[in-house]
Amino acid sequence: MTDKTKLDRRRFLTTASLGGAAAAAGTTLAAPAIAQEMPAINWRVASSFPKSLETIYGSGVDVSERVKAMTDGKFNLQVFAAGEIVPGLQAIDAATDGTVEVANSVGYYSWGKDPAFACGADLPWTFNARGKAAYNYHGGGIDSYNEFLAKQNLVCFPVGNTGAQMGGWYRKQIGSVADMQGLKMRISGLAGRVVEKLGVVPQQIAGGDIYPALEKGTIDAAEWVGPYDDEKLGFQKVAPFYYYPGFWEGGPTVGMFFNLAKWNELPEVYKSILRTACQATDLNTLSEYDYKNPPALKRLAQSGAQPLPFPEDVMMAAFDASRQVYDELSNENAEFKRMWEAQKPFLNDWYLYGQTTDYTFDTMMMIQQRNGKL
Amino acid sequence: MTDKTKLDRRRFLTTASLGGAAAAAGTTLAAPAIAQEMPAINWRVASSFPKSLETIYGSGVDVSERVKAMTDGKFNLQVFAAGEIVPGLQAIDAATDGTVEVANSVGYYSWGKDPAFACGADLPWTFNARGKAAYNYHGGGIDSYNEFLAKQNLVCFPVGNTGAQMGGWYRKQIGSVADMQGLKMRISGLAGRVVEKLGVVPQQIAGGDIYPALEKGTIDAAEWVGPYDDEKLGFQKVAPFYYYPGFWEGGPTVGMFFNLAKWNELPEVYKSILRTACQATDLNTLSEYDYKNPPALKRLAQSGAQPLPFPEDVMMAAFDASRQVYDELSNENAEFKRMWEAQKPFLNDWYLYGQTTDYTFDTMMMIQQRNGKL
Repeated sequence: MTDKTKLDRRRFLTTASLGGAAAAAGTTLAAPAIAQEMPAINWRVASSFPKSLETIYGSGVDVSERVKAMTDGKFNLQVFAAGEIVPGLQAIDAATDGTVEVANSVGYYSWGKDPAFACGADLPWTFNARGKAAYNYHGGGIDSYNEFLAKQNLVCFPVGNTGAQMGGWYRKQIGSVADMQGLKMRISGLAGRVVEKLGVVPQQIAGGDIYPALEKGTIDAAEWVGPYDDEKLGFQKVAPFYYYPGFWEGGPTVGMFFNLAKWNELPEVYKSILRTACQATDLNTLSEYDYKNPPALKRLAQSGAQPLPFPEDVMMAAFDASRQVYDELSNENAEFKRMWEAQKPFLNDWYLYGQTTDYTFDTMMMIQQRNGKL
Repeated sequence: MTDKTKLDRRRFLTTASLGGAAAAAGTTLAAPAIAQEMPAINWRVASSFPKSLETIYGSGVDVSERVKAMTDGKFNLQVFAAGEIVPGLQAIDAATDGTVEVANSVGYYSWGKDPAFACGADLPWTFNARGKAAYNYHGGGIDSYNEFLAKQNLVCFPVGNTGAQMGGWYRKQIGSVADMQGLKMRISGLAGRVVEKLGVVPQQIAGGDIYPALEKGTIDAAEWVGPYDDEKLGFQKVAPFYYYPGFWEGGPTVGMFFNLAKWNELPEVYKSILRTACQATDLNTLSEYDYKNPPALKRLAQSGAQPLPFPEDVMMAAFDASRQVYDELSNENAEFKRMWEAQKPFLNDWYLYGQTTDYTFDTMMMIQQRNGKL
């Protein structure tokens, strides 16, 4: 074969390919290509949160707005507040059974269905927000959780974190772990099971009913979220002792739970857009809480709240109680055991390393804050 | 109008609309719509980092890969390592003058051109990574920095944070602030100006030349990044005292600096895609460092490094020195002053709030780590 022949053949092939593509574009190929890449999709998102908790509720809205902008309006996620389609605590179930395509929720709300749901949300006395993100994105945390969720017809990506929450509002001061005995407290799920071992009597009460229950003394204490969200409910007027940390929620992951079958039908471009939108929102939600909580705590203190750390023996006892619960659950539930064991090596490394540079930097900054130098 | 008529009219409108759309799709509308929404764009990104620092260098690559996936390959950002197009420290200049469309860098590298560049990157003894993100995304930090950058024909979005870096490698132990006097240290920019006030003699030395300089004793100390990146250079063999925190980089923001004129030409969909990709990468980069640094510090300690906190008087003197420098720079540079003043209210709130829930949670976890309970 001469060079000339080779060249001609190459030309022929090129022309033929171009001609074929052009012809196809003019008839059937162009339209399916658009449809394939950017189909119009409308999905419903059931939120576990009321609109009044606009930061955590906003995590679903933020994902929705990003996806809409990135697809030029073609992929729409319509977010419904708790109760609009299903009650907040049933949002994840609704995504499992396909009533909606997505739930914006926290896994531990489905604790009653299977305790393993809590593992991708938060376990008491485990990660703070930064450690959780490191474990989620680089330590296999997301994949580990999704291995469990696939059996529920779900796949989940994080879309936020509140940072360490507060430990709740108490009508009386807590002097030691003995004062936890018999305390009627609005607290639920896994956290309730842990503090039960300290003698607390967990109560299930909806957000709007907490204030009157505290006021009347029907309950002695109630946990909610953190300063910014708590402020709206005015608990400091009836239960001024505001303890920290909320050790059952040191770094809770808020998630978007997608119906797995629906997720699998998405074009790859939309999957990429959703995953990146979720990760951007994950940072955005935490940052929003971090920006709103500090001034809210100042305002609360000015209006009568008394922020106090839990006595050390309460924290120590609660830590031990949490490990007892994990042993019990690991014996009962293989998926819980698998996910709990998987976190432990990095949990230890994270808090060993944590004792060095960031903690020392932060401590110095706090000293200078107290010195009035910031 | 009868019900029948109404029904027919509705049918007619529906058919007509569908027919019109179908006709348009078959002729001219479909193709221009693709071209308008998803143009093929190829941009060059000059990184300030070598490929060997694969985590921070990877921040540019991560943005690029996300954008490629979200645009089905139509918007390509080709990342070039330091030195491939321009030297690392000139990457931002190259984006300003349009040699490249984007620089992946840290603002303080352009400190010599204008000290105000440092304000969007990091100022010694200011924010940790979480506080920085809160300020950037919700406290106006990004907009504040971009107000300055617009005059440099730039717009910047964060794409990463290293967390608090380490304070560097020292041939001899530091007993007190007196030992900083006359110390020849590889440290540059604003950090160098701060430690100069403690008697340190800053040295500018490229990464590859640090090890021999420490070995020969040409210099007494050198700062680099954190455990994971430092480990590759083997400093523990010649300067084993590994101090923390790197108080000049408590939460440095890595950025994508876009040529503003080029940015303004982008379709809105691409701007949305870039902004969300950058924010997702911002979290992803920090999480990657957070996952890699803890085991790296353990390995370093096993191979001879001695991690130590700076003596308290060194930290106190360095804090005061930083504020002196900010006063000097504020007198000289209106943009520096504007951006520094803007951070201060939230900086104080952040470290007041910081003393409560997260810090107590973390402290307890570190105690339990030391107790061998994690």
